[in-house]
Amino acid sequence: MPTLSVESPISPASLIDQLRWRYATKVFDPARKIPAALWTALEEALVLAPSSFGLQPWKFFVVQNKAVREKLRPAAWNQSQITDASHLVVFAIKKNLNVEDVRKFIALTAKVRGVTVESLAPYQKMMEGFAAHPPLDINVWAARQVYIALGTFLTSAALLGVDACPMEGFAPGTFDEILGLDKKGYATVVVATAGYRSAEDKYAAAPKVRYEKSAVLEVLN
Amino acid sequence: MPTLSVESPISPASLIDQLRWRYATKVFDPARKIPAALWTALEEALVLAPSSFGLQPWKFFVVQNKAVREKLRPAAWNQSQITDASHLVVFAIKKNLNVEDVRKFIALTAKVRGVTVESLAPYQKMMEGFAAHPPLDINVWAARQVYIALGTFLTSAALLGVDACPMEGFAPGTFDEILGLDKKGYATVVVATAGYRSAEDKYAAAPKVRYEKSAVLEVLN
Repeated sequence: MPTLSVESPISPASLIDQLRWRYATKVFDPARKIPAALWTALEEALVLAPSSFGLQPWKFFVVQNKAVREKLRPAAWNQSQITDASHLVVFAIKKNLNVEDVRKFIALTAKVRGVTVESLAPYQKMMEGFAAHPPLDINVWAARQVYIALGTFLTSAALLGVDACPMEGFAPGTFDEILGLDKKGYATVVVATAGYRSAEDKYAAAPKVRYEKSAVLEVLN
Repeated sequence: MPTLSVESPISPASLIDQLRWRYATKVFDPARKIPAALWTALEEALVLAPSSFGLQPWKFFVVQNKAVREKLRPAAWNQSQITDASHLVVFAIKKNLNVEDVRKFIALTAKVRGVTVESLAPYQKMMEGFAAHPPLDINVWAARQVYIALGTFLTSAALLGVDACPMEGFAPGTFDEILGLDKKGYATVVVATAGYRSAEDKYAAAPKVRYEKSAVLEVLN
């Protein structure tokens, strides 16, 4: 039976407190690592991230090799987060998603749900139609999905009291080259570093800058 | 003084439980509305969503007008969530973000942080450079940011025990027309409905379909 309701494990006020607490961390404490139990949960949050049709057109590369991080840093405007954060995640799209990927996903769905592939034919047909004639460039679409995973990751980190910094200021092509993503069929779109803020990060204490709700949210009654 | 650490209000296991509990709700209970305190928190989560540089190149249109929802539904493959969910949020980009938007954001930053606009000149110059010569089409970039907000919204809803359905299957141009977004300078990119799942939604009980962690996450040690 479907679970119609759940007891929420967090109050609305606590959720908002955590979202206010988070900020794009500029200076990480290089000595502080994310405990394994928290990191495992953040990896799980990535795996569980929503995507259109559930197709998961992505891969998350967790770069923990120190030497590789040193190589990436100059390709990211030399930002210290790349080497100093506890963890570095490169969010990549699976390039040129196609009907083969749809079939793979349908096979997985059949297996997980204990149904036949045949019973999923209408669903498969719809997704194959999408993959063959996407309403926008398939890689542009995939990049959007990756940003859902980014939002999921940043929110999850904030809730667990883990600092993070989403980063777009880097050369994606150079990242792909250093990490060998191109030949694997992936392309970097965005990066997130995670760990713990340093006492030296002056931005940690800076008030959050957001437009008034009335400027960014309109209720049409 | 910066808050170096916070007591996390939720255990990693509870976070993952909520992310497993969520699913793209196909059938909402039209009689069940999201309580005001929860909805206010979800609006606040949208306002607090991260974006590149903090520029917030977006607006969230919460469509509560029943007649307008009825008009939108045929433009969304007649999906019932559009009319039956407690709340409908249209996520829109602010089109053609430019240096004027950067200046507005700098003025806000100066005000919120109690500093002079002049002291922010290097930051302003960097962002104006970005707005004048974005590394990718500025509207493509803005759409990616909107998907961070979507991920933030879906995760926040799951944590509060609120069901949601992200939706890409609709005609954005028709939505813009019905909601009059074009003349306001916005464009629809994605939609989320939120409320409570119906006992009739067979997908509520279906096991979540995700690739094995090893297929979508690779650790480079």
